[in-house]
Amino acid sequence: MTADANFALGPGAEFDTVRVMLARWGALASGVGDDAALLDVPAGSRLVVSTDTSVENVHFRREWLSAEEIAYRSVAAALSDLAAMAAAPLGMVIALSLTDQWRAQIVQLADGFAVASRNLGIPIVGGDLTRGSELSISITVLGSVERPLTRGGARLGDALWVTGRLGGPLLALRALESGAAPKPAYRARFAQPAPRIREAQWLAAHGATSAIDISDGVAADASHLAAASASRMILELDRLPLMLGATVEDAASSGEEYELLVTAPGTLDHRAFEREFGIPLTAVGHVEAVGNHGQGLETQNRSQPVPLPRGHSHFSG
Amino acid sequence: MTADANFALGPGAEFDTVRVMLARWGALASGVGDDAALLDVPAGSRLVVSTDTSVENVHFRREWLSAEEIAYRSVAAALSDLAAMAAAPLGMVIALSLTDQWRAQIVQLADGFAVASRNLGIPIVGGDLTRGSELSISITVLGSVERPLTRGGARLGDALWVTGRLGGPLLALRALESGAAPKPAYRARFAQPAPRIREAQWLAAHGATSAIDISDGVAADASHLAAASASRMILELDRLPLMLGATVEDAASSGEEYELLVTAPGTLDHRAFEREFGIPLTAVGHVEAVGNHGQGLETQNRSQPVPLPRGHSHFSG
Repeated sequence: MTADANFALGPGAEFDTVRVMLARWGALASGVGDDAALLDVPAGSRLVVSTDTSVENVHFRREWLSAEEIAYRSVAAALSDLAAMAAAPLGMVIALSLTDQWRAQIVQLADGFAVASRNLGIPIVGGDLTRGSELSISITVLGSVERPLTRGGARLGDALWVTGRLGGPLLALRALESGAAPKPAYRARFAQPAPRIREAQWLAAHGATSAIDISDGVAADASHLAAASASRMILELDRLPLMLGATVEDAASSGEEYELLVTAPGTLDHRAFEREFGIPLTAVGHVEAVGNHGQGLETQNRSQPVPLPRGHSHFSG
Repeated sequence: MTADANFALGPGAEFDTVRVMLARWGALASGVGDDAALLDVPAGSRLVVSTDTSVENVHFRREWLSAEEIAYRSVAAALSDLAAMAAAPLGMVIALSLTDQWRAQIVQLADGFAVASRNLGIPIVGGDLTRGSELSISITVLGSVERPLTRGGARLGDALWVTGRLGGPLLALRALESGAAPKPAYRARFAQPAPRIREAQWLAAHGATSAIDISDGVAADASHLAAASASRMILELDRLPLMLGATVEDAASSGEEYELLVTAPGTLDHRAFEREFGIPLTAVGHVEAVGNHGQGLETQNRSQPVPLPRGHSHFSG
């Protein structure tokens, strides 16, 4: 079961697929060839670890994304969980299950992992390759952080801030599910999400008290944040930053955004953030109470009353 | 895609399965509920990481193993790669893909992970749960080690040592594939393998210079060791420690043993090892040359000539 653990190499045809990947990866893959990978966590830092699985027909459909995009997206999604903790990437391990049909796409998959490794700054330190009846990619990401952001640190009076503009992934999915081509801007947000690694580190250094990445939709994720922080939060839906063409409802329920929702003082210099990263940082609510003064999320909409959007579900869920 | 990352909990029916698992795990699961898990690597130690995937009908058949055994075995197999580096377990993340049929077995699977976590001494620090068209379990294990054993450190004159007795998993598989019930002793070696965590630490502390866990069969794994150590090794097949009823050929080619094959001085006190752990430690060969004096593995059999056994393949491979 561990012949190919850490993509260890030995004689035999079963290793050919691994060799193809390693040839495409070059120096992006490190420490490969032993039973396990060795990494060093910087002194004074804690280790952060998270895993995320992408399965064909659960998280995507083959006709929607290229093999490169599927691989890239799986890494970006996993890294978003490191971003939510304000961690710096150390390395990732890739557990890959391939059908014969997908094995014929191994170069394209390997290239997608390589682009993600390079662009997102995370070496490939190990993996496991196996056959399966569907394409399944489990990415485990390792990172380090001195002072982690968690979901549980929100303070009374903090503002709720969100990075970027919301709605793109939902609008892309809506088009794809109806058989139409999404607008390129929406498609890019779905196919090539950007984990907010450096943005999270900036926010942590500038007073953020809690954070979550937006995977279920901002309203649902704000509920998670309120629950973990044992606080009552107000989310002002009419203040949500919208992708052009998205409604408030789209933005509130759009999942797999991989933007950040953080609590931080309302005095945070959002213009400095925007100059640094070229994306908006928008105050969308605040922490109204903590502890026993009522917990949960209240959504408000000054323009019109809307029901609390339901959380995101996978399209076939 | 990351709603359930690190088995984070929120509202909604999709989390019910996670709740069931967490209820079974109790204190064995730690740090669950945020976007990622936080761990501390002891000062002066390096981080060791490895991942291993078990897929139904590739690594096992449903009728061969109980759900508890499938879960336990997947953890044991992954941990064996930490053992090969002489690392101490820090924690594991579990990426689990379930069909609806397997979801009905969630308590049994959770209990198998719990027994593995408790017996093998590795907390559950995170995971990801998704639907899939087959049962797939990817276990990523994290460990720490001050001075890692690798495959590449064999020295001229070292003896080749193997832990335990070989052949059980092959004999179990042979019976299962023919529709027969394996002898309990063989079945136990297949269904509940024992990763040699403490044994490896002992060997590292007593002069071992390189190590690999036996997953492909001792002859194939000795080849890997010889290649990684750029050395020429002699494996004396007639000295292999045999499970009762196994032939030399069985022992040489039996995979998924998860015993250790190490190089260490021939003067190693194997009796002290045997007293400590209750399993044999057997000299089965030596390192005949290192560097440019010829590399690879030569098998010898003083009782009779046998061809070099082929490496282990998964039963449906």
